[in-house]
Amino acid sequence: MTGLLPRIHSPADVRGLPESELPQLCEELREEIITVCGRVGGHLGASLGAVELVVALHRVFHAPQDSILFDVGHQAYAHKLLTGRRERMGTLRQAGGIAPFLDPRESPLDALAAGHSCTAVSAGLGMLEGKRRMGKPGHVVAVLGDGALTGGLSFEGLNNAGGSHLPLVVLLNDNQMSISANVGAIPALLRTREARAFFEGLGFTYLGPLDGHDLGALLKALREAKHSSRPVVVHAMTQKGRGFPPAEADTQTRGHAMGPYEWRDGKLVRSRGGQRTFSEAFAAALDEAMAVDPRVVVVTPAMLEGSALVDLKARYPDRVHDVGIAEQHAVTFCAGLAAAGARPVCAIYSTFLQRAFDQVIHDVCLPGLPVLFAVDRAGLVGADGATHQGAYDLSALRALPGLALMAPVVGEDIAPMLATALAAPGPSVIRFPRGTLPKVPPELRAGTASVQGARWLRRAEAPRLTLVALGPLALAALEAAQAEPGWSVLDARWVSPLDAPALLEAAACGHVVVVEEGTARGGLGSAVLELYAAHGLTPRVRLMGLPHAFVPHGDARTQRSELGLDAGGMRRAGRALLERGR
Amino acid sequence: MTGLLPRIHSPADVRGLPESELPQLCEELREEIITVCGRVGGHLGASLGAVELVVALHRVFHAPQDSILFDVGHQAYAHKLLTGRRERMGTLRQAGGIAPFLDPRESPLDALAAGHSCTAVSAGLGMLEGKRRMGKPGHVVAVLGDGALTGGLSFEGLNNAGGSHLPLVVLLNDNQMSISANVGAIPALLRTREARAFFEGLGFTYLGPLDGHDLGALLKALREAKHSSRPVVVHAMTQKGRGFPPAEADTQTRGHAMGPYEWRDGKLVRSRGGQRTFSEAFAAALDEAMAVDPRVVVVTPAMLEGSALVDLKARYPDRVHDVGIAEQHAVTFCAGLAAAGARPVCAIYSTFLQRAFDQVIHDVCLPGLPVLFAVDRAGLVGADGATHQGAYDLSALRALPGLALMAPVVGEDIAPMLATALAAPGPSVIRFPRGTLPKVPPELRAGTASVQGARWLRRAEAPRLTLVALGPLALAALEAAQAEPGWSVLDARWVSPLDAPALLEAAACGHVVVVEEGTARGGLGSAVLELYAAHGLTPRVRLMGLPHAFVPHGDARTQRSELGLDAGGMRRAGRALLERGR
Repeated sequence: MTGLLPRIHSPADVRGLPESELPQLCEELREEIITVCGRVGGHLGASLGAVELVVALHRVFHAPQDSILFDVGHQAYAHKLLTGRRERMGTLRQAGGIAPFLDPRESPLDALAAGHSCTAVSAGLGMLEGKRRMGKPGHVVAVLGDGALTGGLSFEGLNNAGGSHLPLVVLLNDNQMSISANVGAIPALLRTREARAFFEGLGFTYLGPLDGHDLGALLKALREAKHSSRPVVVHAMTQKGRGFPPAEADTQTRGHAMGPYEWRDGKLVRSRGGQRTFSEAFAAALDEAMAVDPRVVVVTPAMLEGSALVDLKARYPDRVHDVGIAEQHAVTFCAGLAAAGARPVCAIYSTFLQRAFDQVIHDVCLPGLPVLFAVDRAGLVGADGATHQGAYDLSALRALPGLALMAPVVGEDIAPMLATALAAPGPSVIRFPRGTLPKVPPELRAGTASVQGARWLRRAEAPRLTLVALGPLALAALEAAQAEPGWSVLDARWVSPLDAPALLEAAACGHVVVVEEGTARGGLGSAVLELYAAHGLTPRVRLMGLPHAFVPHGDARTQRSELGLDAGGMRRAGRALLERGR
Repeated sequence: MTGLLPRIHSPADVRGLPESELPQLCEELREEIITVCGRVGGHLGASLGAVELVVALHRVFHAPQDSILFDVGHQAYAHKLLTGRRERMGTLRQAGGIAPFLDPRESPLDALAAGHSCTAVSAGLGMLEGKRRMGKPGHVVAVLGDGALTGGLSFEGLNNAGGSHLPLVVLLNDNQMSISANVGAIPALLRTREARAFFEGLGFTYLGPLDGHDLGALLKALREAKHSSRPVVVHAMTQKGRGFPPAEADTQTRGHAMGPYEWRDGKLVRSRGGQRTFSEAFAAALDEAMAVDPRVVVVTPAMLEGSALVDLKARYPDRVHDVGIAEQHAVTFCAGLAAAGARPVCAIYSTFLQRAFDQVIHDVCLPGLPVLFAVDRAGLVGADGATHQGAYDLSALRALPGLALMAPVVGEDIAPMLATALAAPGPSVIRFPRGTLPKVPPELRAGTASVQGARWLRRAEAPRLTLVALGPLALAALEAAQAEPGWSVLDARWVSPLDAPALLEAAACGHVVVVEEGTARGGLGSAVLELYAAHGLTPRVRLMGLPHAFVPHGDARTQRSELGLDAGGMRRAGRALLERGR
């Protein structure tokens, strides 16, 4: 590759270019982003929209002395390309490769570990206050998408920043899109002159709106912001997917995140697996439930696409509510719906439900309202990495009184679980992983209709060991047990309440391996141990789950193998337990 | 008691009074609130400020067909007095008595289970949408303090409500105070004409500002709001503590929550225990640490008083940050501070840290930043009841990688724990309960200086059973073991990482009772079971902790006894375990 980009190894190199060459640099950045994402997939749209912003930021501010915090990090591929990571960008989102979002451990120029939205203003304000306290120099810029403005954390940060009078610079990257189209009053507000009043009311100087692809205007505004002695918002209008016709044209998501693609003869060629995912199967079951039960409504915090709800939204526009990036509201809104007699289903990723832990406890479980949480992306998520792993839902949720918690093994389990949850008087969780549905083995065919307690997938005649598994891992457990004499397999199915009789029976053979795709601290395995302790049973038990560490991006299947969460790993664990038990 | 109040048994009775008698009703309500709070303590200030609001609401709206949602429920003592609970108000906050906040199980006129701030708009919007979906009639009013406006959840709700065009009525009870004085840009905004622009920008019709003690003005505005076909905010200015001179004069908290008092000869006589609390001891240790380490800063989400930080704020105004009711921001702000090299201490109640679970995971633990969480009110809290119990911090937090978690038994443990946490390279938690410091028994005197692992409080010569306890419960464990031959007592001290050698030694005697003041699902006890399973040990273990149910308001000491979390309970549990083990 020739051109400017190969000569840029740090922000200083960006500042060294003549201003006249910056448009060419932006063009090369776009080409590179399109090429890389075509090869490995990624968050194409936001990054293409923010190319000029990133170049202007590195031109005006001196990172790392000045701290540039990119909210989420979706927008920041150009930043990665300008900060010494260009040659490795082909490894984006791959195991051992460049991280999907931002990580200070990957580069000191990543000021903020990011992956969840809405953190930049609060973290930026803390960093600015911290620099002052420590006598360190440097400006702080928080780069924020307009989608993040609907999230309460951003507002809490703006309120405090505005009241602090500290010269925090907020660059609002307004592409008029969240992951889905934006919702609520704020997007409309940003399109009007009221935007100025809104930010000024919050204590900020307001600069804008300006064309976020006009480098001259950006540089001027950022220089002005840099010299401000008080909080300032620079409002830049950008186009998500800018420079990539298919993304520009896709009004639904503007190429928010895509798998690998080919860009041939002016046409986009994407390889679609075609296999149905858990998300799609859940949405299909929901569709059937909604057809017969008018009480059922669906709430999603900006995840219509991710949770496979686009078709459902089209079919039931008044019954599928996208509330924007606002997880807390999503849950408390569901509580209100349930209190009025509706049957809300909150479709939410495991990692984002962490944002609404208190609302689940306080607004749903405490009053015992019948809200169903469809917890998607539970377990390993692959390329999205550490910030998106669904590792903590089981341990956090099973402690909550009155909350039923179940997990399907195969797609056929979903409809009966949904029916069970919708018939329950109180709150429920159905948790399922990212990825395609497994094939249904003969052992399961008989048992999918009912969700009364756990399900024996294999019962040894002279049992020596029981593999207790949750979710699709039960299929790997079945495979592990295949050639092992005396091994039984129990699909736990319920984490709360546990199926005590089945689990006590499982313990009778003296050896139990519990397998779950969630942290092994406090999850299903611990629940099983608690049960045995309460009954005075002392079988030998081995817990298998996600490690007590943040699991980075990589291929989920490979990671499962490495963590022993596959048939081979379970077989080894079971044999070792038996060996030790002698 | 004569007067109007004894004749009011429901909102219909309020509507039946001639309008000319309403001022007298308000006066009687104030007297009753002052009398009740004098006798049993309570949230005096907000409720006194909201008397006219409550009367006007029940005059204009027809609960329960119309749903009136009081945010938090602080404001709602007048509502309780008007809805059939007057005769039982003397039992407020007592075991089996009237709940401290609001609870639909106590009265169908309590539309919302409340106790944590900022939920009313989201829940109200859900209720309005739910009523429409279910074909039910009725208006919905969300009554919100101005303090709740700094919380992100309120903003998420307002954004969605404004965008929904549904005729939600938001009554802003603006007493210019949160629990402490309000912080950030919003309080200033509310004092200006920009308030109108702010709410109009969010899609609301704005009515106000009006005098919230002027019944005529309130009735007029609420009637107008009731007939609105779109979202509307009624902005009422009120005086916290209105009608109670000591509360009116107390500019710090305006009598936010008080213990019992006497109101004699124009003077307030409060009985102060005089004994030092855990919160005060922690603040004192913090004071010493701040004196020698300029990196240390303190962040509190509106809990300067509750966390005993008022004096510290006076001494270090620039190093103690009250960020308002904004728990998510508090944590992410700390992450920014830590990233810049400061040593932030986030002083937060266990129940409110639930609001920032994702920020603890994503912004602090994932990047491994050295933020210290001083988790107050961990365990039973007494009169504040179910919404405020600190039951879930141990189970939720111990699953988080890199987060150290410890608990002091006595006040003397705090300073060395604080020093340990401030010297650590990563994040830590110190959790302590509500209440006064216990006396230091001789067994502990030797061991308070170091926090290397667990601490043996009693070592039996021929051990038969070990009581493993956390926090002040270790003293009850010591008492339980006193007369029991062969009983040892181990203060676990660390929940994460566990002191494995000490706990393995504890298991050698074959019987272990683990005691903690947190849910017994997934907490310290489960951690101990996991450890034993990993080491192939199979002692008989009994877990004691908070039940899998929401614990209501009551006397914490009595509740501990009832739950077996006292010396007698531990003795019974230990004996039963030994009995079964034979």
